[in-house]
Amino acid sequence: MSENKPIILKIGGSVITDKEGDLAAKTEVINRLAEEVAKANVKNLIVVHGGGSFGHPTAERHGIKDGFKQDGQRIGFAETHHVMTVLNGLVMDAFVWHEIPAVSVTPSSCVITENGRIKQFEDAALRMLMKMQFTPVLYGDTTVDEKLGFTVLSGDQIVTYLALKFNASKIIMGVDTDGLYNADPKTDKNAKLYQRLTLKELFDIKGKFAKPTATDVTGGMFGKVNELLPAVEKGIPVSIVNGCKPNYIYCALTGEKVEGTILEK
Amino acid sequence: MSENKPIILKIGGSVITDKEGDLAAKTEVINRLAEEVAKANVKNLIVVHGGGSFGHPTAERHGIKDGFKQDGQRIGFAETHHVMTVLNGLVMDAFVWHEIPAVSVTPSSCVITENGRIKQFEDAALRMLMKMQFTPVLYGDTTVDEKLGFTVLSGDQIVTYLALKFNASKIIMGVDTDGLYNADPKTDKNAKLYQRLTLKELFDIKGKFAKPTATDVTGGMFGKVNELLPAVEKGIPVSIVNGCKPNYIYCALTGEKVEGTILEK
Repeated sequence: MSENKPIILKIGGSVITDKEGDLAAKTEVINRLAEEVAKANVKNLIVVHGGGSFGHPTAERHGIKDGFKQDGQRIGFAETHHVMTVLNGLVMDAFVWHEIPAVSVTPSSCVITENGRIKQFEDAALRMLMKMQFTPVLYGDTTVDEKLGFTVLSGDQIVTYLALKFNASKIIMGVDTDGLYNADPKTDKNAKLYQRLTLKELFDIKGKFAKPTATDVTGGMFGKVNELLPAVEKGIPVSIVNGCKPNYIYCALTGEKVEGTILEK
Repeated sequence: MSENKPIILKIGGSVITDKEGDLAAKTEVINRLAEEVAKANVKNLIVVHGGGSFGHPTAERHGIKDGFKQDGQRIGFAETHHVMTVLNGLVMDAFVWHEIPAVSVTPSSCVITENGRIKQFEDAALRMLMKMQFTPVLYGDTTVDEKLGFTVLSGDQIVTYLALKFNASKIIMGVDTDGLYNADPKTDKNAKLYQRLTLKELFDIKGKFAKPTATDVTGGMFGKVNELLPAVEKGIPVSIVNGCKPNYIYCALTGEKVEGTILEK
């Protein structure tokens, strides 16, 4: 039965887009990642990608995350969802081109949130796609929300939700750094990469980094870790690897040793 | 309450793509239709579009409609769904550009069929999008199928399904002819356009055109009519208008008089 447990691969928006740009996809990276996913040839794979410079600036401009406040936001919601489907289209293009049997599953078509948290995930089609050995590809998206009217649903929340629901064998987080550090490696030459962190160690570090002045140190990584904690608590290991470096995600998918941080219970 | 009954607009694949080509979108037509939909400014509108030269040739090449028979078809299913999302992306691009609060709802993410007929339509998100006054846009798509493994779901079937489920006030079918004729207008100069057909008249004509030699006469229109019959029977009028002619769909949306065929109980 363990073969049936899916691996969930998250591809960060900062890996496949240029976060400094606007709607700036890194098509050569998307292409390389498609090649790695095809080569790894993992059965029971679910892919989730982020929004990067597609979803985030558009959602931000229209205040989508905070919910429906005035009529004019409707077009902003429409636009935010649309640009996310455009980014997803680029990913799907590369995946299909590399003969991955990948089928996009649109979160806003089957998820309802409540105050930003997944309340209802209508997953009959997703389950059947998995049973048929397709590789479902989801992404951070806009959603209708029972309390807020609408909001933004992060790819990270989808990852943990699916990992818990389908009892994933592991989660791979492809990000744009080498993993979790004890300081900001961009400014501190002595920053040390954590190779492995237990749940207890994570909680200790979390407390340390929760100080307002230190929130940037991890490049927003601790929000991500926070979202992943319930999966780690459930015993699902999380590998955080650098998706910008060739073959790191391939190695993580096939179980080969690769630099990064492993979170585990 | 009647204001809450949606109008369902079907935009035929033959209107927005060149059916002779391969993945050949008529972007200028898509743009004009977006302009017409924006100008008509109908509340409670649901749009469904067909696959034209995107979905059909790809599905055909991989035998998707007939269901899963061998592993190699998986990539064909993935490709067919992908090209449909590409066509949908072009439609959404034009709609959002024209400030229509349009949100794509991906059929394969929320529909399961059985022998090609809709068995389960998980519509919680769709319903909330309608309640929030968005314009949902669906399309002919691949679906997972409880009997066939997978298949193709036509936009026409989606139209009737939604019309019955949400008790539509009317259905507008934008096609590439002026309506239903008593002969093929392309070859018979005396072909006469039906302006209005009752259910009884439709059944009479259907019998006449059901003869194998005559199936081409209507350009496949009678398959479409067949799919729509349950809606007409329920009392939902259907306007068949030429979406290739400027302002026809606009007039149909706003209730202005326009050439075409009306089907009614």
